Amino acid sequence: MARRVGNQTILLEKDIAIKGCAGVVGKKEGEGPLSKYFDMIFEDEYLGQETFEAAESLLVKNAVTLGVKDAGLGMADIQLVVIGDLLDQSMASTYGIKDFGLPHIGLFGACSTCGLSLGLGSLLVESSVADNIVVATSSHFCTAERQFRFPLEYGSKRTPNSQRTVTGAGAAVLSQGSGKVKIKAVTFGKIKDYDVTDANNMGAAMAPAAADTIKAYLDDTGAKPDDFDLILTGDLGKIGKKLLIELLQKENIDISSVHDDCGLMIFDVNSKDFAAGGSGCGCSASVLYTYIMDKFEKGELKRILFIATGALLSPTSSNQGLSIPSIAHLVELCI
Amino acid sequence: MARRVGNQTILLEKDIAIKGCAGVVGKKEGEGPLSKYFDMIFEDEYLGQETFEAAESLLVKNAVTLGVKDAGLGMADIQLVVIGDLLDQSMASTYGIKDFGLPHIGLFGACSTCGLSLGLGSLLVESSVADNIVVATSSHFCTAERQFRFPLEYGSKRTPNSQRTVTGAGAAVLSQGSGKVKIKAVTFGKIKDYDVTDANNMGAAMAPAAADTIKAYLDDTGAKPDDFDLILTGDLGKIGKKLLIELLQKENIDISSVHDDCGLMIFDVNSKDFAAGGSGCGCSASVLYTYIMDKFEKGELKRILFIATGALLSPTSSNQGLSIPSIAHLVELCI
Repeated sequence: MARRVGNQTILLEKDIAIKGCAGVVGKKEGEGPLSKYFDMIFEDEYLGQETFEAAESLLVKNAVTLGVKDAGLGMADIQLVVIGDLLDQSMASTYGIKDFGLPHIGLFGACSTCGLSLGLGSLLVESSVADNIVVATSSHFCTAERQFRFPLEYGSKRTPNSQRTVTGAGAAVLSQGSGKVKIKAVTFGKIKDYDVTDANNMGAAMAPAAADTIKAYLDDTGAKPDDFDLILTGDLGKIGKKLLIELLQKENIDISSVHDDCGLMIFDVNSKDFAAGGSGCGCSASVLYTYIMDKFEKGELKRILFIATGALLSPTSSNQGLSIPSIAHLVELCI
Repeated sequence: MARRVGNQTILLEKDIAIKGCAGVVGKKEGEGPLSKYFDMIFEDEYLGQETFEAAESLLVKNAVTLGVKDAGLGMADIQLVVIGDLLDQSMASTYGIKDFGLPHIGLFGACSTCGLSLGLGSLLVESSVADNIVVATSSHFCTAERQFRFPLEYGSKRTPNSQRTVTGAGAAVLSQGSGKVKIKAVTFGKIKDYDVTDANNMGAAMAPAAADTIKAYLDDTGAKPDDFDLILTGDLGKIGKKLLIELLQKENIDISSVHDDCGLMIFDVNSKDFAAGGSGCGCSASVLYTYIMDKFEKGELKRILFIATGALLSPTSSNQGLSIPSIAHLVELCI
């Protein structure tokens, strides 16, 4: 049974593990520094489909299929899928997994969905709602640009602050018992709104949410930043990382020596095209479920905090000039 | 601890109750047959806000505030909110509750969100993730028309099959112990896709999902339709209700004598304007958390199945001519 500590952190008392997982990406991600860790790299941004949205659904389908296979299971062993993505009404997830015929919990947390699904899925496995749960999430550069900024066909110039949405998907199978890594704690975040309205500067919008959730976890548990080998945020990118560190320093919390960000790992940030880093649900998912799992396997990581951050804007809220509320969900992982 | 029976049903073994709840609606709903049961009726469809979306957020805020009050609690007693709505990126929910400062799980299940949030919230209370969880959902006629069909300003004529999206929101507080009604079982649905592509005929799209989930629950538990005082679907409307009964009859399951649908209760279906019934997340939520709770309180209901149905379309999927996948989540309620 779960045990709540402090205001918002839940400790898992059973052994709940990632039994298998996978991450698949597009061409640009496949050319980046983590190339060799991905389970599949798709050269064609359409993945042979007619629309970018159908391509993103196929990323989801592949990640789930490979994740289940990696766990040594078949689809018949899975009792529940917990899933979401960035698009209106989670379109990529719905069409990506509808043919698997699995009981389904749809989530919305924008780019925080990787942490949200991992945390929630773990709690549901611990409470015996299911033996094996698949959690998954995705994003696609072309679907996200069309949805939140401009269709690519307009040829709009991206701003220097704008992170590139990752084309990728990640999936994990959660089960009781042993696995690649255990889930020890979950902190669901609160919505924070610092009146950022620039849909090209998500890192700035999301940093306060990440700071708030990290502080909540540390307050709740009494842990210190250097108890961890890594404090890994989802996709704050270059500007968001700087802001996060500053915000926590004001609270006398120094994570600078152990912090890294999936958005700054997946692309070569020395290249002008990717200077601000990556973003999107598929960013943290494809990094966590491949490269980070590999580091656990090699013993280079033993205990980390993973904080997926999400900017909860919509095309309508942007058009109405509203601020971008954000959220961050935290999961503690260890071997 | 939860106990899974059959393929997809979870029985709750502790006493998990709706401790308090509320439903608020707009003018047309307030003029309907359930008028006297609603906690608030707003005459102005803008609720004094500048946009319909802001109005829907205010419906959410009011429902949550009144639901928490009805439970005899304050916002500081709530540890988690589980919420979603119909709009792109759950905009109404995000802006509606962001100022409450509560840890937040965002859901997407379209009109099934009332059942999804109630079921998931109950499981999380049972596993001690939180003492008190607020679940909530909403819809608004004007935001939904703009999002999924045409902005009202176009003056489009609605088809005879089209259900009217309810302007309303409902919220409930879930806690261990006693309350208005207990949650005994949850069946999370599977996505069903019967190739319906008409965004004006959601009932037809959703009926197969409702049939599938009801059959799954009955198969899993061995219960029969006449074990229940009521089998209540969310918002299938007139056409969906007929289809649901037919689909289940083919499986030798006859629910005709105990079935009703929130979409057929909230409006006067003898009036031409509302002939097909109501729909939207706010439909089932505002009916369940007011009129149905009243019937439990009076002892007119003792044991019911509530099945919230959702059509998982998006503006993009409609524009691309895709089918409308649907889902239905079931919750068993009893005193």
